[in-house]
Amino acid sequence: MPLPAFAIRAPDSEIVAAIERRIDGKTKPFGALGRLETLARRIALVQQSLAPRIERPQLFVFAADHGAAHAGISAYPQDVTWQMVENFLAGGAAINVFARQFGWQLAVVDAGVNHHFGPREGLIDAAVGAGTANYLDAPAMAADQLEAAIAHGARLVRAAADAGSNLIACGEMGIGNTASASLLTHCLTGIPLDACVGRGTGLNDAGLVRKHKLLGLAMHRYTVHGGGIGEAADPERVLREFGGFEVAMMVGALLAAAERRCLLLIDGFIVTAALLVAARLHPEVVEYCVFAHRSGEPGHQVQIEALGGEALLDLGLRLGEGTGAALALPLLQAAVAFFNDMASFESAGVAGKL
Amino acid sequence: MPLPAFAIRAPDSEIVAAIERRIDGKTKPFGALGRLETLARRIALVQQSLAPRIERPQLFVFAADHGAAHAGISAYPQDVTWQMVENFLAGGAAINVFARQFGWQLAVVDAGVNHHFGPREGLIDAAVGAGTANYLDAPAMAADQLEAAIAHGARLVRAAADAGSNLIACGEMGIGNTASASLLTHCLTGIPLDACVGRGTGLNDAGLVRKHKLLGLAMHRYTVHGGGIGEAADPERVLREFGGFEVAMMVGALLAAAERRCLLLIDGFIVTAALLVAARLHPEVVEYCVFAHRSGEPGHQVQIEALGGEALLDLGLRLGEGTGAALALPLLQAAVAFFNDMASFESAGVAGKL
Repeated sequence: MPLPAFAIRAPDSEIVAAIERRIDGKTKPFGALGRLETLARRIALVQQSLAPRIERPQLFVFAADHGAAHAGISAYPQDVTWQMVENFLAGGAAINVFARQFGWQLAVVDAGVNHHFGPREGLIDAAVGAGTANYLDAPAMAADQLEAAIAHGARLVRAAADAGSNLIACGEMGIGNTASASLLTHCLTGIPLDACVGRGTGLNDAGLVRKHKLLGLAMHRYTVHGGGIGEAADPERVLREFGGFEVAMMVGALLAAAERRCLLLIDGFIVTAALLVAARLHPEVVEYCVFAHRSGEPGHQVQIEALGGEALLDLGLRLGEGTGAALALPLLQAAVAFFNDMASFESAGVAGKL
Repeated sequence: MPLPAFAIRAPDSEIVAAIERRIDGKTKPFGALGRLETLARRIALVQQSLAPRIERPQLFVFAADHGAAHAGISAYPQDVTWQMVENFLAGGAAINVFARQFGWQLAVVDAGVNHHFGPREGLIDAAVGAGTANYLDAPAMAADQLEAAIAHGARLVRAAADAGSNLIACGEMGIGNTASASLLTHCLTGIPLDACVGRGTGLNDAGLVRKHKLLGLAMHRYTVHGGGIGEAADPERVLREFGGFEVAMMVGALLAAAERRCLLLIDGFIVTAALLVAARLHPEVVEYCVFAHRSGEPGHQVQIEALGGEALLDLGLRLGEGTGAALALPLLQAAVAFFNDMASFESAGVAGKL
């Protein structure tokens, strides 16, 4: 079954010279706003505009369960996935707090939680199944599940873009999903598995040893069945083998956002694993991305480097849910504000360099 | 003439255990909000409250001129100081944009600019003189000027605290003031002068060589007149020798804010030089500080380490005006918001660790 198609082109770079002139004319020493200037350049480029705007910033939290969670790869029981979804719906989680504070439109998506929520106010039911299969025994999902997850993620983002959102962020909840992200990162980048594995929600030393061992077994099953690593990896197969439904849905969301020329604010380790998959399918997606933060999960820096990015914030966050992306929004708004509203040397009558 | 007195005590640490319990009970893995948790702890400690609030955040931009500016220590002519004050009053500078965006109360203070503004809407006239003397020839200011500057900075902060502000930030404008800050930093920390000197607003290589040489001459004049370095330095004398009026006024502002138990959000290289002076006079002032960002001026990291701090943002900013502090406010508000508004494991019915 073929994956959904996406038509993604890199932003037209013809506007860059005009963007640079605008920035360099502002009443500040050359380059003095540092990374905020890079950010303004990226936003104006993606929007192909000298009057960029951030409209209706939309954050999707995709929740799903992982069959491997019962094998001992997480510090928390699988039930925490649905319990945290309930917490999202009640407005009590960190992402609720930050979304309210910074004006994000927040949507909570059941991408495949092992729980029957029934129809619920504020919950988008896009469940592809009741959690994935355990990748220690078999591929995590069937081909039609992968296709459905990608299509649904894309559909949600297209609806948001239709409603006027031009900034999209993804977050996630799924006990076991740092393990999934570690496998995806290792397979797609070829970086040694050990450098891609961390404590997730807070494994102790014994738990971390167990996680390394279990993920090694998962890789063994994959490679003896002909799975490739690095350049030899097939992104679709890797995602089907190890991905959670939430990760697959994010792949669709990221690709649809780039197709619709929305800016993408990339959160942490799990979201960036989805981006690694998306970028192997359509490399141009990275041109639409801003990396919100570097998480405390060590594999995240590995991913960011593999994608040639640089994180805005570095606060040691390792909570997921999209919290790092949520927190970076004011910096994007500041970049847009200085670009649009600061005076120029000329308009303000300020002297230039000696 | 004695300096104004300040009664500053470190916050009472008895509340820390209760603060920690509150943070650790939130629906998130232990420590998963990283630096935001450290920040919430600091704010709650300073406010001695389990329901912290940020009220009427107040940012003062102190502007003044430096006699040494004509000697060739800056890439810009001295006139840029008053021209940028005009830009602040017209609302077109970066600090205006960010203050509006994030809801700062902004006050522009003439601490001693070499320009006659006359009575102006929005400008606080606290001028101690028409710029300092050139420290290559003589101490930058007289003892009574130093005293007046510190007293005025303190008065402004006390009035803000009386009006309900519990968060204070300082910013500055003054052509030549990175040079002044380099000298203060070298004298007070004992760190080699070369590690404290940078390009400021953007000196080229030849300009940077000239700046190093001129500051070496300034240090020579100081030491042959018995000036001490490191532990042997007298902070009052160092400030009088090399400080700008805006730096001295910030010393008063910082000390008065700590005395009134306000949180202090510390901006960049010049403000942190003022904090080095303040901390030598009253070490407890540091307990009230959050370091907003690490600037692109290399000496800033030297200062932050000397004060035992850690910066929140690292965006390569080197603009001054308080812009780094202005940009960090949303993170402080996020820390307060999660502390007050996030659900606990107990209240949300979420399971704990296995």
